[in-house]
Amino acid sequence: MSSDTASGRNDVADWWRTSIIDMEPGRIAFRGTEIQDLIGKVSFPEMIWRMTRTDIPTPGQTRLLEAALVAAVDHGPQAPSIATARMAVTCGLPLNNAMASAVNTLGDVHGGAGEQAVELYAHVESYDGPVSAALDAWIAARGKIIPGFGHRFHKPVDPRAPRLLALVEEARQQGACDGCHAAIATAIEAELADRKGTPVPMNIDGATAVIFAELGFAAPLARGIFCLSRSVGILAHAWEQMQQGGRNKGPTPPAYRWTYDGD
Amino acid sequence: MSSDTASGRNDVADWWRTSIIDMEPGRIAFRGTEIQDLIGKVSFPEMIWRMTRTDIPTPGQTRLLEAALVAAVDHGPQAPSIATARMAVTCGLPLNNAMASAVNTLGDVHGGAGEQAVELYAHVESYDGPVSAALDAWIAARGKIIPGFGHRFHKPVDPRAPRLLALVEEARQQGACDGCHAAIATAIEAELADRKGTPVPMNIDGATAVIFAELGFAAPLARGIFCLSRSVGILAHAWEQMQQGGRNKGPTPPAYRWTYDGD
Amino acid sequence: MSSDTASGRNDVADWWRTSIIDMEPGRIAFRGTEIQDLIGKVSFPEMIWRMTRTDIPTPGQTRLLEAALVAAVDHGPQAPSIATARMAVTCGLPLNNAMASAVNTLGDVHGGAGEQAVELYAHVESYDGPVSAALDAWIAARGKIIPGFGHRFHKPVDPRAPRLLALVEEARQQGACDGCHAAIATAIEAELADRKGTPVPMNIDGATAVIFAELGFAAPLARGIFCLSRSVGILAHAWEQMQQGGRNKGPTPPAYRWTYDGD
Amino acid sequence: MSSDTASGRNDVADWWRTSIIDMEPGRIAFRGTEIQDLIGKVSFPEMIWRMTRTDIPTPGQTRLLEAALVAAVDHGPQAPSIATARMAVTCGLPLNNAMASAVNTLGDVHGGAGEQAVELYAHVESYDGPVSAALDAWIAARGKIIPGFGHRFHKPVDPRAPRLLALVEEARQQGACDGCHAAIATAIEAELADRKGTPVPMNIDGATAVIFAELGFAAPLARGIFCLSRSVGILAHAWEQMQQGGRNKGPTPPAYRWTYDGD
Repeated sequence: MSSDTASGRNDVADWWRTSIIDMEPGRIAFRGTEIQDLIGKVSFPEMIWRMTRTDIPTPGQTRLLEAALVAAVDHGPQAPSIATARMAVTCGLPLNNAMASAVNTLGDVHGGAGEQAVELYAHVESYDGPVSAALDAWIAARGKIIPGFGHRFHKPVDPRAPRLLALVEEARQQGACDGCHAAIATAIEAELADRKGTPVPMNIDGATAVIFAELGFAAPLARGIFCLSRSVGILAHAWEQMQQGGRNKGPTPPAYRWTYDGD
Repeated sequence: MSSDTASGRNDVADWWRTSIIDMEPGRIAFRGTEIQDLIGKVSFPEMIWRMTRTDIPTPGQTRLLEAALVAAVDHGPQAPSIATARMAVTCGLPLNNAMASAVNTLGDVHGGAGEQAVELYAHVESYDGPVSAALDAWIAARGKIIPGFGHRFHKPVDPRAPRLLALVEEARQQGACDGCHAAIATAIEAELADRKGTPVPMNIDGATAVIFAELGFAAPLARGIFCLSRSVGILAHAWEQMQQGGRNKGPTPPAYRWTYDGD
Repeated sequence: MSSDTASGRNDVADWWRTSIIDMEPGRIAFRGTEIQDLIGKVSFPEMIWRMTRTDIPTPGQTRLLEAALVAAVDHGPQAPSIATARMAVTCGLPLNNAMASAVNTLGDVHGGAGEQAVELYAHVESYDGPVSAALDAWIAARGKIIPGFGHRFHKPVDPRAPRLLALVEEARQQGACDGCHAAIATAIEAELADRKGTPVPMNIDGATAVIFAELGFAAPLARGIFCLSRSVGILAHAWEQMQQGGRNKGPTPPAYRWTYDGD
Repeated sequence: MSSDTASGRNDVADWWRTSIIDMEPGRIAFRGTEIQDLIGKVSFPEMIWRMTRTDIPTPGQTRLLEAALVAAVDHGPQAPSIATARMAVTCGLPLNNAMASAVNTLGDVHGGAGEQAVELYAHVESYDGPVSAALDAWIAARGKIIPGFGHRFHKPVDPRAPRLLALVEEARQQGACDGCHAAIATAIEAELADRKGTPVPMNIDGATAVIFAELGFAAPLARGIFCLSRSVGILAHAWEQMQQGGRNKGPTPPAYRWTYDGD
């Protein structure tokens, strides 16, 4: 990047700054490594790590990240994100636009639960007192919904959570992480079951948040990487819908109209 | 899924149909495989394949798909998709919304080039005549822009293309693909250089389209999978911008206003 | 806008050019009129006209545009656009993001029908032959779906169409338009009824397209202005859903799961 | 809407409820009024009011709402929302998708300022103490950025604010509103000028928030209605860009590359 204050060039070039990518004609480098030294040499999950962070993962770390990416790809056509993608395709949208409308819905309630769970674990970790008191403080500040725990459908167990935690434990034994956030999440799960008198199982957001926290990802990246993962299911369903056809397909069958509850 | 015509249940359940995912409380299966048998066992690229297709890839096929996914993650903050993501963050958007605005822009011109290149290769493959005539027919029907070839910045060579083609050749030698579309793309490149008297290098879209075509992906999935790949760069830049800060950051520095060309 | 090639200022300022808006500190002008001379003086529909065109409408023209804007605001929570907005809100999205996901779905099939109907009228207008032959030529080139005609729900009549056409006729009598495109649309409607042996009523897209064509709007603006109109219903439903509450609300009630049709 | 528990119909129909729109074949009614009695009879701003609220506005109220709608349509191609729309079009997006990507960016920082200003006025109104103390309490709770005041470009005055306030005063004299929130906003402006020793002029968000608060709109609707207004400028610029052409147009001219600040 040449610098020439007299020509006014510098302030324009400086308006957008990045340490992710450097480029000249015929050359592309990501965080200092040429693209041709990455293609065919690093895995896609490792590339995700290198792009969103400044360090390089160990194989054990990559393996954990990959598990989180695989686990969250889809939850079926009644998840609002997937339903949005399928309806969008029937409105004539190409895949990129259908994916955008759908990824957009991965907001505070849907895609944000993982981010909030990472925050919850950090809160419990730094709280001076037992898990029970930490949880009370969290509820007082953030409300009664505990992000990452409980599932309205998967009862008593979300099948993704124990499998992910088993991989975290394996990784811990191999030194890829210290298991501290897994322990916190398990303690929260036990405390919640105790309070409710019934299991409040860790869900996909709670389990992947353990992985993100163990790997040192900042909380917002739990949401961001979930978006990468769920984009796969969104794409798959959008594409399946494109093959099924349909035009302007609404949420419920046409024979069932909505309820008008006005005067 | 129970079926009970008398209760009206069936027509509602049938409104959304999928062969991607089956679910009961405590059970999630993708195309017949339980989620706990996928997590930690299949790679993220293999999961992308399984979700968007009905077959299961060989390791060689997965390796090619992974190369395409790694190659296209980012092209810097002056690509409109990346610029959109960075500006969106300065408007106060969380990562999912910033990603959505950006993925949305991967339209016919940006993200659609790979899809069109797959179509171009299929056109040349099925055309009864030499590449030169096939190209003329394409131009007559679709216009003079040849998708997948030429780059306004990377001259004379887009560094991603030869590396990807080398991997395709490796895969061909190992029987993972037959190299037919790589040959077509190379022939198009030669023909274009011949016509212009200067190299019109295969670009990232042309090279990844070779991989998608070799692997038997339908053309629209070239766009869809590009969206998955570029989402990584979009996320990385959105997150970097979030850390940099800035509020309502426009495209150019504030000191440079736009040109008003009205009366 | 000052011009100073030596400082490199010009090429940056020229990168974004517009004849819509001019600005200096303390001054904003739209197509030559200061903002303070517009606020409280021109109606919102007139402002829409002035922004998207280079001329200024007569009161009769504005009245027609306003009718089209009012007519298309909403078609209920089972329209995919509205359903998307409502689901998005239950995912925790603020109104701007919910609106975006929904407006995004106003694609070729949904929001594009008006644009295509304007093109259809222009095609019939310039076609050298009777409406019947013009229609055949259209079908040969563009397929059997005639944009702007037929409604799967409103049978025999879409109540918006006759009301809009009555206003066009009124406007014609008052000299605000020449009625040429209304005549074309009516002739198409008659021809289609003749062919099918049953009414194929002009729908909202066909009727508003008459207005856009009568007023001289380019076809893509039929889609664009429809987006402005439908944004009102999208906003209204998103806001109502926000007040109703709900979290991650899917398209159908949870008791009705989708149909899995895989192996 | 028929009700038939035996057929399972009711719970499906009840899943989406609204008091905005009722519909049968051939009939559409908004909050109890048939669509044909609205088209050509109520203005577009009145329709916006009727859709987002449950009451019907007086002409004076509609006039104020219309002024707010007209005032905020656009702030030029360097506003991130407008830049996003223009870049999106050069990526090959139709107008609906370009509008969606752009409206999406009207988030907490950009489109949310009006919403926050309505909240600020409500806070000051209900605060037991002088404006100065109310402002201190706001800053303690919400941070030092005062929504609706100050403009980095329009100094010393945002030309839209005094014009809008003059219309509010006019409306107050005619009994369309009580002027209470205008008084609060003016007091905040004076207090801020006093604190900084220089004018911190009310901006477009602060002035339209006065109108929304005077008219009794809930705070989130300040953001929602701003989205309707700004959609006009977004559409106008997207359409202008479509006419200008350009492919994959980035934020700054290609000759100015970004600054790489990595190692």
